Amino acid sequence: MADRKMQIVSAAEKSFSAFGYKATTVDQVAKLAGVGKGTIYTFFKNKEELLHYIMEKLVADMKQSAEQAIDEHLSFIENVHRALYNMLEFRLKHKLAIKLYEEVQLGTPEVVEALHVMEDTIIHYISQYIEKAVRKQEIVPCDPKLTAFIMLKMYIALIFDWEKTHPPLSKQEIAKLFELYIFRGLSFDHTVSCT
Amino acid sequence: MADRKMQIVSAAEKSFSAFGYKATTVDQVAKLAGVGKGTIYTFFKNKEELLHYIMEKLVADMKQSAEQAIDEHLSFIENVHRALYNMLEFRLKHKLAIKLYEEVQLGTPEVVEALHVMEDTIIHYISQYIEKAVRKQEIVPCDPKLTAFIMLKMYIALIFDWEKTHPPLSKQEIAKLFELYIFRGLSFDHTVSCT
Repeated sequence: MADRKMQIVSAAEKSFSAFGYKATTVDQVAKLAGVGKGTIYTFFKNKEELLHYIMEKLVADMKQSAEQAIDEHLSFIENVHRALYNMLEFRLKHKLAIKLYEEVQLGTPEVVEALHVMEDTIIHYISQYIEKAVRKQEIVPCDPKLTAFIMLKMYIALIFDWEKTHPPLSKQEIAKLFELYIFRGLSFDHTVSCT
Repeated sequence: MADRKMQIVSAAEKSFSAFGYKATTVDQVAKLAGVGKGTIYTFFKNKEELLHYIMEKLVADMKQSAEQAIDEHLSFIENVHRALYNMLEFRLKHKLAIKLYEEVQLGTPEVVEALHVMEDTIIHYISQYIEKAVRKQEIVPCDPKLTAFIMLKMYIALIFDWEKTHPPLSKQEIAKLFELYIFRGLSFDHTVSCT
């Protein structure tokens, strides 16, 4: 039973990644999974429920991947680097998120909604770490939710938007840019002020 | 002749701002401008050309608004603030850009393309200032185009995306956040390093 559910989920993932959410039909998923259409409906009410299930799994996988990278003994900045690196590895394996971000441009409401929920979950998750880092005085005081929002948006801009019109940036480049813009800042002022 | 062209452009602007690009018809624009449909076609081949003309005007207006704010005697960071403030004022007066950004979600290809061109123009414009600032050692060495891209993306995130699910930020708040994330950085490290 659980096996068949996973077969269906894996088939849907493949189809969403290759053709997008809108162009995928339950019939297609059934064929790809090698099960009858009726079997799908015993697990999922409709295509939208399949999408929600897959998105929840995607977010859970991302969290796990980030958590594996985080080491309590290291600094916040070090840990952000490590989590970023892991999530970037992850991104190469999973084309689904990229395909779905593309589909927002088609305005499919379920996809727009699903990505909103995903973003909110990620922001909530990151903001807990930021709160802790501010408390431990590892970073300057800032609004944790807004900072998490900015980090996510910059990350998305660097890995999705930039690639639309430029050659993709390497993992190392992305990590460096993140460090430069978010942590170090472009200003010389604070170093000059200590003389 | 020139007057009638401006009447048409102003009518199209109003219609795009109120109903969006997709929902606007050339008939509507003609009625709103008080001219015949044929008159429009003597100036513009189709609705898309009207959009291009309006977008070019919008970008030129934004540039002018930014340039008015820039004072050669002030530092780069100060000038970025001033240009931002002016562009924010501008945005409050002109609902067209906001309406068009909403319409990207509907996936209208002409609008997606028009906003791409607009973003590229803005990035090119900002990157010239960044290049100068790096040369004058007002900011740390960085890729001007990437930095302009990041600035624009952060700006769009703060004024468009954040407002979708949160109360809008004030001009002062946006300027402060921009300063914190882009110029100052979240890290304490560089100040610590001078002891």
